[in-house]
Amino acid sequence: MILCDIGNTSYHFLKHGVDFKESVDDFSPSSIDEIVFYISVNKEIKKSLKSLKNWIDLSHHIDMKDYYHTMGIDRIIASKAVDNAIVVDAGTAVTVDVVKDGEFMGGFIYPGVQAMSKTYKDISPALEYPFNYNINLDKLPKNSQDAISYGYLKTLHVEVMKHNMPIILTGGDASKFAKIFPDAVIDENLIFKGMKKIIIT
Amino acid sequence: MILCDIGNTSYHFLKHGVDFKESVDDFSPSSIDEIVFYISVNKEIKKSLKSLKNWIDLSHHIDMKDYYHTMGIDRIIASKAVDNAIVVDAGTAVTVDVVKDGEFMGGFIYPGVQAMSKTYKDISPALEYPFNYNINLDKLPKNSQDAISYGYLKTLHVEVMKHNMPIILTGGDASKFAKIFPDAVIDENLIFKGMKKIIIT
Repeated sequence: MILCDIGNTSYHFLKHGVDFKESVDDFSPSSIDEIVFYISVNKEIKKSLKSLKNWIDLSHHIDMKDYYHTMGIDRIIASKAVDNAIVVDAGTAVTVDVVKDGEFMGGFIYPGVQAMSKTYKDISPALEYPFNYNINLDKLPKNSQDAISYGYLKTLHVEVMKHNMPIILTGGDASKFAKIFPDAVIDENLIFKGMKKIIIT
Repeated sequence: MILCDIGNTSYHFLKHGVDFKESVDDFSPSSIDEIVFYISVNKEIKKSLKSLKNWIDLSHHIDMKDYYHTMGIDRIIASKAVDNAIVVDAGTAVTVDVVKDGEFMGGFIYPGVQAMSKTYKDISPALEYPFNYNINLDKLPKNSQDAISYGYLKTLHVEVMKHNMPIILTGGDASKFAKIFPDAVIDENLIFKGMKKIIIT
């Protein structure tokens, strides 16, 4: 059994416990004969995979009444993976979803690191700084780099902490966010856990 | 005495208690003979005004050791206007500054409404919604519009409220933010109050 999480730039595979990525530009899905369970936020690829019988779209096996119809499939699957946690998926966007006793309670969407850097830079070239992840979030800033870092990170931090739940970090920027959420657990394979859960149950 | 707050798009005047705006494209500063006390975040105009004797730059009359050298003059002047408050200036950027017993304690910079709308839209066309200022911030969202509105507004809200101080709203989007800060005081002329304070003391 192969699992695959398809994004806008890559196919992320899990095969026999090993994960690897293939670029959406180079990889040909028909080169695989085994059964592949997949989810895809990439609409074009999702469409093209309909003709391949061994590629099985897991999004058709989810009870959508527990979620909402415009919710990203990656958020749904990550939420499926946990029973009691706040899941912070730090990618192009930062999605924050709360699950209590296995039930999705709701969540919100915050800009990802790259998007928010660009936002500050576009507001003013004077705000073009990398974010400082080592910032002291207990102290109001008195310099420009910390003023934007605090604006981006503290506001998110205080909202996430307020829920007082175990924090699970996933996504490409999980390790950056781990600096401001030192008690969080990083789980790069959360999405695969969620997929397995759907296949098994 | 005329006061003038010069931004990137307009001259904002206060003359005999009445405020009005002139476009930076059309207005000629040399058309005024009276003394004008001004501040300017617009570097080009600031430069050109040096040759006009009746235009007096108030930024030279501030003790910068109380602030930091890259801090916007508009933030400094707005902070000067209050003794005990958290000032939320909702413009191109949202600046949030804390003043206790007349002393600037620090502050942070968050994207303005337009900038943040663009950020979400650029992340995905599926996130192109106007922000919902009537959102219930006590409830985690279960739809896309509220998911971005909560991401933008709740994170800011929870951080601002945490300081437990009187909130003063100013800037072009003050009335929008008043919906999520119902106890805040809107003061469109905060910057002029700060300017007067500097002139008088």
